[in-house]
Amino acid sequence: MTDPAPSAAPAPFSGPGIPGLMMDWPLLTSTITAFMEENFGDQKIVSVVDDLGTFTYTYAECAARVKKLANALKAAGVKPGDRVATIAFNTHRHFEIYHAVSGMGAVCHTLNPRLSAEHIDYIINHAEDVIVFADPACMPLTQNGMERWKSVRQIIELAAPYEEFIADHPAEFAWPTLDENAACALCYTSGTTGNPKGALYSHRSTVLHAICAAGANAFGLRATDVALSVVPMFHVNGWGLPYTGPICGAKLVLPGRVLDGPAITKLVQDEGVTLSVGVPTVWQAVLDHLTSSGEKVPTLKSVFIGGSAVPPSMIDRFEAEHGVDIVHAWGMTELSPIGTVCKLDATAEAQDREGRIATKSKQGRAIYGIELRTVDDAGERIPHGSEEGGELQARGPWVISAYFRADTPDSFDNGWFRTGDVAIYDNRAHMQITDRIKDVIKSGGEWISSIDIENTLMGHPEVRMAACVAKPDPKWRERPVAIVAAANPDAPPSAESLQAYLAERLPKWQCPDEILFRADLPIGPTGKILKRQIRDELYGDAA
Amino acid sequence: MTDPAPSAAPAPFSGPGIPGLMMDWPLLTSTITAFMEENFGDQKIVSVVDDLGTFTYTYAECAARVKKLANALKAAGVKPGDRVATIAFNTHRHFEIYHAVSGMGAVCHTLNPRLSAEHIDYIINHAEDVIVFADPACMPLTQNGMERWKSVRQIIELAAPYEEFIADHPAEFAWPTLDENAACALCYTSGTTGNPKGALYSHRSTVLHAICAAGANAFGLRATDVALSVVPMFHVNGWGLPYTGPICGAKLVLPGRVLDGPAITKLVQDEGVTLSVGVPTVWQAVLDHLTSSGEKVPTLKSVFIGGSAVPPSMIDRFEAEHGVDIVHAWGMTELSPIGTVCKLDATAEAQDREGRIATKSKQGRAIYGIELRTVDDAGERIPHGSEEGGELQARGPWVISAYFRADTPDSFDNGWFRTGDVAIYDNRAHMQITDRIKDVIKSGGEWISSIDIENTLMGHPEVRMAACVAKPDPKWRERPVAIVAAANPDAPPSAESLQAYLAERLPKWQCPDEILFRADLPIGPTGKILKRQIRDELYGDAA
Repeated sequence: MTDPAPSAAPAPFSGPGIPGLMMDWPLLTSTITAFMEENFGDQKIVSVVDDLGTFTYTYAECAARVKKLANALKAAGVKPGDRVATIAFNTHRHFEIYHAVSGMGAVCHTLNPRLSAEHIDYIINHAEDVIVFADPACMPLTQNGMERWKSVRQIIELAAPYEEFIADHPAEFAWPTLDENAACALCYTSGTTGNPKGALYSHRSTVLHAICAAGANAFGLRATDVALSVVPMFHVNGWGLPYTGPICGAKLVLPGRVLDGPAITKLVQDEGVTLSVGVPTVWQAVLDHLTSSGEKVPTLKSVFIGGSAVPPSMIDRFEAEHGVDIVHAWGMTELSPIGTVCKLDATAEAQDREGRIATKSKQGRAIYGIELRTVDDAGERIPHGSEEGGELQARGPWVISAYFRADTPDSFDNGWFRTGDVAIYDNRAHMQITDRIKDVIKSGGEWISSIDIENTLMGHPEVRMAACVAKPDPKWRERPVAIVAAANPDAPPSAESLQAYLAERLPKWQCPDEILFRADLPIGPTGKILKRQIRDELYGDAA
Repeated sequence: MTDPAPSAAPAPFSGPGIPGLMMDWPLLTSTITAFMEENFGDQKIVSVVDDLGTFTYTYAECAARVKKLANALKAAGVKPGDRVATIAFNTHRHFEIYHAVSGMGAVCHTLNPRLSAEHIDYIINHAEDVIVFADPACMPLTQNGMERWKSVRQIIELAAPYEEFIADHPAEFAWPTLDENAACALCYTSGTTGNPKGALYSHRSTVLHAICAAGANAFGLRATDVALSVVPMFHVNGWGLPYTGPICGAKLVLPGRVLDGPAITKLVQDEGVTLSVGVPTVWQAVLDHLTSSGEKVPTLKSVFIGGSAVPPSMIDRFEAEHGVDIVHAWGMTELSPIGTVCKLDATAEAQDREGRIATKSKQGRAIYGIELRTVDDAGERIPHGSEEGGELQARGPWVISAYFRADTPDSFDNGWFRTGDVAIYDNRAHMQITDRIKDVIKSGGEWISSIDIENTLMGHPEVRMAACVAKPDPKWRERPVAIVAAANPDAPPSAESLQAYLAERLPKWQCPDEILFRADLPIGPTGKILKRQIRDELYGDAA
């Protein structure tokens, strides 16, 4: 094994109190790379890649290539702190870049291939990346890159050119002992307004996030599990699975570019996947595919879903029809990303089915390491169990303290990060997101949760997608309007039938004034419905 | 909630590389206290106490009393860095002391009530404790304490006097923001030779240990679990359960003073215990009780056993007769304590029953955070899969860098802590302890594992306890001798029948030359058989 760790020197100390006498062993991502090689060398990584098909190798073989890559990057002049960009899907090569770039002290900067060319240009120039790795399917995005991106010295395709890049380098690399607060990864938020902003993760934040996400109240991964990372590795560290997986010795399945219902179902079946993660739209597609094809996924035990609220109907159907435990999670780019996970405790498990689904429809409890609070308009903390919603704020070792090269004091409130979400808490510490602050509908002085209306509509069998936005209203200030994509576009339900369905389930004043139909709703680069765009199209920018 | 955590300031940084931009949120035990109060306020702690019987309260009620105690300690003049001693069993009051003393910045110093008065005097005077908390049953050990212990200002009985001590203090306390490398706990090893030596844990080491022990390859605790801490809280932080339990939101059962088979069985049944931890002798007694009484423990799923090697026969019987997964673990006072846990991975699970029991009889893999190696006499690392045993060495964030107020350079080898254990590794990173270095039997130039012989004897139905020690031998230098306590002392097996049993299972040259019988074997203060004492009695100190 190479040597990321220190001597038996005690950790540095400044009072009060007396110094503990424990070893100074910094939390570096290279300790995870070394751990997987040392302890789970024969565990498998399965990767779906354009040039190789389904490719399988072991953690030990992976670690050897990670070290070859680290040597290649060093030879290419990459220095500690340099940003190395990826525009790539979930493959073993992307996994190798995560480990090699961070392990050597550089910063792994993941870009979303679904961003516009303008955003990609802005982000690469803002981050001053020195090398760009891109999947074959993403190479068009790099056209004229050397002219568009002044800091970039090399663009390497993740296929034969990547193999050539690492080929002649040795499979041994002495991981440097870094400050654990050094940056190791960078991810820009895809904000719908303003320029993208970068979250610059440290080794410490990344390792702590990976350890805490491994806990049984979160992923609860172990060495008998097969974990399929449907959530893209270009999206907030792939929810930490590229580090949590190796810590737990789990078999990792990296599905590549194609994430439709049939492809995911086949991977789950072929590889015996036990656990997965992803956004609701992807898993809705899997559920629809299972229903239409009659296929089963007997090995699959749990799917962690975040990014947007999961409709209760989806939780219910996955459990009832497939025995899959859908676990709601909530996080953000600025939180590395995991904030809460809704694994039920004994009291919640003891509820009847309806009660359990209701609890599981919430985003759940903070995992250890994350502190959360909701505050009212006056900035006062709202106690748990209050009916009152408020802005959700977060603090902890994997929460950003600032954006990269941006001064945004409004993002923080007296040491807390302002999430931009509105949430309510029940009296058992379960958090529920009711809206993004910018999506809140204020009607007659009361807040109406757009997510409540959407979730209720999603429970209707004839509805495939639903969004709810605020329409300007002279009397009430704003009123809700729902936009629906029907399950069968040729025979959509009537607006009246949906109104009746809502009226049975929501207070009358919260029901939308209108229901509009669309063939499809616009989806953003991270899989979320672009409600802002819908509202702007309907009611103009001034809405 | 009170406020252990910081502002949105970034963490401090020294290059190389660039600083990450994540919050500076130190890993303090008070963050665990605050987490349990905030997120699992209605979860239960059950405590068996001499003056109250079986006492139950919630994490929120506990946290309120922890803060009262912190205020009381502050009023009594306890300052950051001061050592506060406990001589106590596992109760809610002991749990409160853990959290209050460390949270306020002082050091919780646990003493083993089974130590000799001389050792207790030495340890308290060496540590310079300022306050001693003692269980009613331990009060005799404190007689004339104020004269014997010059640093001690107050001795408080953990009954009515403790209640009076905290009664008038407020249930709010602002946990100070400490350096995470500050000491929070102290535990002395009960070495059989020389003076006891203290391991001085830091907040960082304690929190990292608790998080990593929560992982599914280790305890895998979650909020549906009921955890019974049979391992004493005076013994290496109770294996971290007083912190891991709250992080996981598990119901905690603290069994007090009586840890015999019937008492533990009743607690498991009454409280629906799902998971427990302890040393082999205690769980052997539970198994014997279950067999003789015919009782069942249907809720109990797994028991983590460490401290000494678990005989394969015990693993086998617990699984076959009670459906309980016995998970072998290995640790030391100097490792906080957890080093390895033998949760099976998919490959090991796929073995036949015999293969599974063989793997489970090993001490298992390092959990993330611990690095281990075995070295030969020349100090060279022995590769995994070698047949060769060697000294086991450890490093990591919860391994000591020195003993408290003692200079022992021989305890370390170039940055690694020397465990004093001899171990071998299979080619899948499973570690197996074959001996303590001081117990190794060197016969004709070959090492014989005393633990192998003991485990084999323990598989014989007529053997209750077994120890194997080295007898000086003029020809071979040393030869093994076994000392056995029979299951039925009135009708012990013959030495010949045990010799024949061993001869079928071990190489001939490893079989003991003699088998001696005793009514009982001497047990040390942490539940281990005192092999050194047996050998000294048989062959003198010079052996």
